[in-house]
Amino acid sequence: MAPVTIEKFVNQEERHLVSNRSATIPFGEYIFKRLLSIDTKSVFGVPGDFNLSLLEYLYSPSVESAGLRWVGTCNELNAAYAADGYSRYSNKIGCLITTYGVGELSALNGIAGSFAENVKVLHIVGVAKSIDSRSSNFSDRNLHHLVPQLHDSNFKGPNHKVYHDMVKDRVACSVAYLEDIETACDQVDNVIRDIYKYSKPGYIFVPADFADMSVTCDNLVNVPRISQQDCIVYPSENQLSDIINKITSWIYSSKTPAILGDVLTDRYGVSNFLNKLICKTGIWNFSTVMGKSVIDESNPTYMGQYNGKEGLKQVYEHFELCDLVLHFGVDINEINNGHYTFTYKPNAKIIQFHPNYIRLVDTRQGNEQMFKGINFAPILKELYKRIDVSKLSLQYDSNVTQYTNETMRLEDPTNGQSSIITQVHLQKTMPKFLNPGDVVVCETGSFQFSVRDFAFPSQLKYISQGFFLSIGMALPAALGVGIAMQDHSNAHINGGNVKEDYKPRLILFEGDGAAQMTIQELSTILKCNIPLEVIIWNNNGYTIERAIMGPTRSYNDVMSWKWTKLFEAFGDFDGKYTNSTLIQCPSKLALKLEELKNSNKRSGIELLEVKLGELDFPEQLKCMVEAAALKRNKK
Amino acid sequence: MAPVTIEKFVNQEERHLVSNRSATIPFGEYIFKRLLSIDTKSVFGVPGDFNLSLLEYLYSPSVESAGLRWVGTCNELNAAYAADGYSRYSNKIGCLITTYGVGELSALNGIAGSFAENVKVLHIVGVAKSIDSRSSNFSDRNLHHLVPQLHDSNFKGPNHKVYHDMVKDRVACSVAYLEDIETACDQVDNVIRDIYKYSKPGYIFVPADFADMSVTCDNLVNVPRISQQDCIVYPSENQLSDIINKITSWIYSSKTPAILGDVLTDRYGVSNFLNKLICKTGIWNFSTVMGKSVIDESNPTYMGQYNGKEGLKQVYEHFELCDLVLHFGVDINEINNGHYTFTYKPNAKIIQFHPNYIRLVDTRQGNEQMFKGINFAPILKELYKRIDVSKLSLQYDSNVTQYTNETMRLEDPTNGQSSIITQVHLQKTMPKFLNPGDVVVCETGSFQFSVRDFAFPSQLKYISQGFFLSIGMALPAALGVGIAMQDHSNAHINGGNVKEDYKPRLILFEGDGAAQMTIQELSTILKCNIPLEVIIWNNNGYTIERAIMGPTRSYNDVMSWKWTKLFEAFGDFDGKYTNSTLIQCPSKLALKLEELKNSNKRSGIELLEVKLGELDFPEQLKCMVEAAALKRNKK
Repeated sequence: MAPVTIEKFVNQEERHLVSNRSATIPFGEYIFKRLLSIDTKSVFGVPGDFNLSLLEYLYSPSVESAGLRWVGTCNELNAAYAADGYSRYSNKIGCLITTYGVGELSALNGIAGSFAENVKVLHIVGVAKSIDSRSSNFSDRNLHHLVPQLHDSNFKGPNHKVYHDMVKDRVACSVAYLEDIETACDQVDNVIRDIYKYSKPGYIFVPADFADMSVTCDNLVNVPRISQQDCIVYPSENQLSDIINKITSWIYSSKTPAILGDVLTDRYGVSNFLNKLICKTGIWNFSTVMGKSVIDESNPTYMGQYNGKEGLKQVYEHFELCDLVLHFGVDINEINNGHYTFTYKPNAKIIQFHPNYIRLVDTRQGNEQMFKGINFAPILKELYKRIDVSKLSLQYDSNVTQYTNETMRLEDPTNGQSSIITQVHLQKTMPKFLNPGDVVVCETGSFQFSVRDFAFPSQLKYISQGFFLSIGMALPAALGVGIAMQDHSNAHINGGNVKEDYKPRLILFEGDGAAQMTIQELSTILKCNIPLEVIIWNNNGYTIERAIMGPTRSYNDVMSWKWTKLFEAFGDFDGKYTNSTLIQCPSKLALKLEELKNSNKRSGIELLEVKLGELDFPEQLKCMVEAAALKRNKK
Repeated sequence: MAPVTIEKFVNQEERHLVSNRSATIPFGEYIFKRLLSIDTKSVFGVPGDFNLSLLEYLYSPSVESAGLRWVGTCNELNAAYAADGYSRYSNKIGCLITTYGVGELSALNGIAGSFAENVKVLHIVGVAKSIDSRSSNFSDRNLHHLVPQLHDSNFKGPNHKVYHDMVKDRVACSVAYLEDIETACDQVDNVIRDIYKYSKPGYIFVPADFADMSVTCDNLVNVPRISQQDCIVYPSENQLSDIINKITSWIYSSKTPAILGDVLTDRYGVSNFLNKLICKTGIWNFSTVMGKSVIDESNPTYMGQYNGKEGLKQVYEHFELCDLVLHFGVDINEINNGHYTFTYKPNAKIIQFHPNYIRLVDTRQGNEQMFKGINFAPILKELYKRIDVSKLSLQYDSNVTQYTNETMRLEDPTNGQSSIITQVHLQKTMPKFLNPGDVVVCETGSFQFSVRDFAFPSQLKYISQGFFLSIGMALPAALGVGIAMQDHSNAHINGGNVKEDYKPRLILFEGDGAAQMTIQELSTILKCNIPLEVIIWNNNGYTIERAIMGPTRSYNDVMSWKWTKLFEAFGDFDGKYTNSTLIQCPSKLALKLEELKNSNKRSGIELLEVKLGELDFPEQLKCMVEAAALKRNKK
């Protein structure tokens, strides 16, 4: 029998994936081809003896020629953060490869952050050889990188799956510890599908001897692409009509509806449709803390970031005028919900759109309807298509106008004449230095709280770990974002007023205490030729902690560094690729930022070390600390 | 009733611990006083909102005046490594404090390493307030730093103990998640006792509201000190006599006994007794990979490091001459046992001394006797005391002489005339630059394999992660060692030919790839005024991995750094405290090392960047790779 032709399964572009249906390839090659088939074009990580046989397939001609790139990071935690950033930017799966124990455990905090914030990350871990582990002789032995048993470890073998057992059902939506090469390809594909379905991290543990084993190409031929759309549950047409009719009837009868754009809208790739819905209907719209930049904040009915009683009073007041709240991509946690202070207009209706349910709450009737197991992404798309704007009955207060950067009316006691740079000054001036289409990565810290109330220019992509809040994450995440911008150029731009030939800037706002955690990855950013503007807020330590407790305690101090000297050590020996500037006064900052805003240069790294006051907290941070009752209530 | 006086419970020195039996103190103060009471005088870590209320008690007058020191590290993994180094040097408990999730998970790989290598580390984690968690309202809420449930997280609260569940019974010998202030002090003490007993890490999870709660001083009064000796099981006099008689009868009847000094001898603080036993008896003695420097290698019957078939042939041959092997502090794993290639003279007897058993194996009879639940530390002490040297019947081959650095007879094809620095050159020359009493920390990597066969000078303390092998560990571990040397001056010296006024050097051997993982902690070493000599082997990447696979693959490359520029950025802005030198030829290296060897200066940091060949592997590394069959066996 002639071999089955693959022509009907794959288009030209996909021919690199397979040569022949009945052909076999080494499993290591399978993994990398599967990654390419989901548009994951770069992989982060650190080599280690248990993953080397897998890494060898990076150089397999068909993998290498298809452009899969290895981005070696300085350590594994940074690889996890970078993979997270890669996914946040591209909405593809970010991937990292580490080794048994020493590598995977180092990366764990990054994975937990991706889990908490619904980021699609695949963590591939090279583990002990399976073939050996089948022999009892081998399984009795204490392998390096593997913790022994607590009791009788000289007589009893270790649990080879001990690290797998730690992460399973805790920080991963899907975990496969491969033990049978026959099912290995299916297991890889299943983990990938789960990652897309849940938008959470997954793990594949690959025995060191599996990379070289032969597997068939069948999966790659039969399913040459896996996209997130393929992995979510769609409603039947009947269900869809039922849900859409219910929603639109509520919208049509509402005088003051509101759209609340939340983070999962981004994670399921439908922000674009939400913005189209806003444009089409003119419904007032608000962002959430974690959903910041889901909504194009330059739209004329943007009303600011709503965060319950923790947010700005004027935003809160406008939100409470709304008799219907359409909460898209809802994710409920203390940070994203102002420490559970969300409140609604009396008798308001609320519709929550979630990857696993659509929930309609009628607070007047005191009842609710729940459509379970339905992903909101197709619902949103259809809602945009089917909504009949002629049936809208909007009656907003015409005195209320679009939220802008002036809405806050920040009081600057120095009236702009301060010789030092303050958080108030930054809030008043920073937004205007951002261009439509720029990409901003912001570290957890005091400045992050200011950014909440910026009205971003059109199509700006904002990336920040708003809930898990692991300091040190942003710098390696910026590496991942930069790599993703190279792999998926302008993936974040959907229309809007971004000039066609504009090349987006990548801007990283970083605190000094946080930067010290993961600083080495600056050298990888340099190595990978990522154009970056990095602004280090140097306020002598952990100012976000000082706002909570111990404002002058030594535990909140960090070592004083000369940030502008870093690149001389980290690889730019003669200053060809980087430019580092110390900035201590507002006028110099304005000049530099203006220069960067207008520059077309998209190469090299600009580092600004900006001095800030140690105890200068943005108002929003103070509000959060009050709301969270984080201050000590000594007994 | 008059309050019970404490005079009879505590001596003068311990009066700072308590003021009054019936007095109460805040729990935060209790924790730090308990740490002081076990001679843990410095604590590593990073502040975070859930641990700030605890950290406040660092400044409580009675804690501060007693000298407890906070050593803030740049990140939590480094804190774990530092705490590990603190314990390895001092044999006290190393302590780190982190925060819920983001902090504790980052530290996890360090803790796993301590577990694998039997290092006494206490990890205190600040977690959510307990008082709140009792209200269902609070427990339903998704807290920051805490991963939500995978399913229905908008409706179901998170598992507050999710991270606790990950580490319990896997990487800790004892775990207490405090939930009741009434038993909190007992729980703290129990974890400390377990850490001493098992010589493994333990965890205490402290709710943020517990630090301020009042507890009684009773435990501190009743047990003002907890030492490792207090925590191990002693045999009864009958048992002791029985065991010692059995052991001595075997020794007396042996013609060629051998002592094998293994790592747990160090961990249970009895290396000194082992060395005394060696001096008293003149028994041939060998070290193991992980037990390196347990035995004073300058003793006249030192026979080298035995590592089965993976070690030097001449050592292996001498070991096989021995008819009785006394293996003290036995820890069996693939690295420490030459990938399970330990072999013995036919019909040899073997006695294994372990913290939980004494095992006597008679290979001629094919039988064994096991004393379970007995710690070897008191047995070793008594054996030293009770052994009657007049009954020994040693008949060693008189042609066999002490192992020295010349024993290896390394072949240098260039006959010492090479213009570049090679691993062979280093093996031939490095040992002579070490002084008796020095402290050497060695990173996992190619050079580490050379050090195995050094004959160290007397009383040199060697610290290296020989089994878990997590690269990047050594640099922050050196911080911990340096702090421990400040807190416990000369704790490692017990007699030997160290000059009385000699101040030991702290020397760190570090690889470039490994150094990039954790480089920021150099700034903390500088901040803490730790005198250090750090030698960076710059061989352009992960040479240890190149020895295994992919010698020229890009995944084994790292970014090229200018190591000598680091301190300018990291805090020594005008070069007052550090001196950095690039070294590319053997003569310059010899000059510099000679200078350092003879210098009495014990302040500031000397950094040497030493260039090595990318593919220059020590012979011992090649042997290990062969033995472990790590090379790819492509199918």
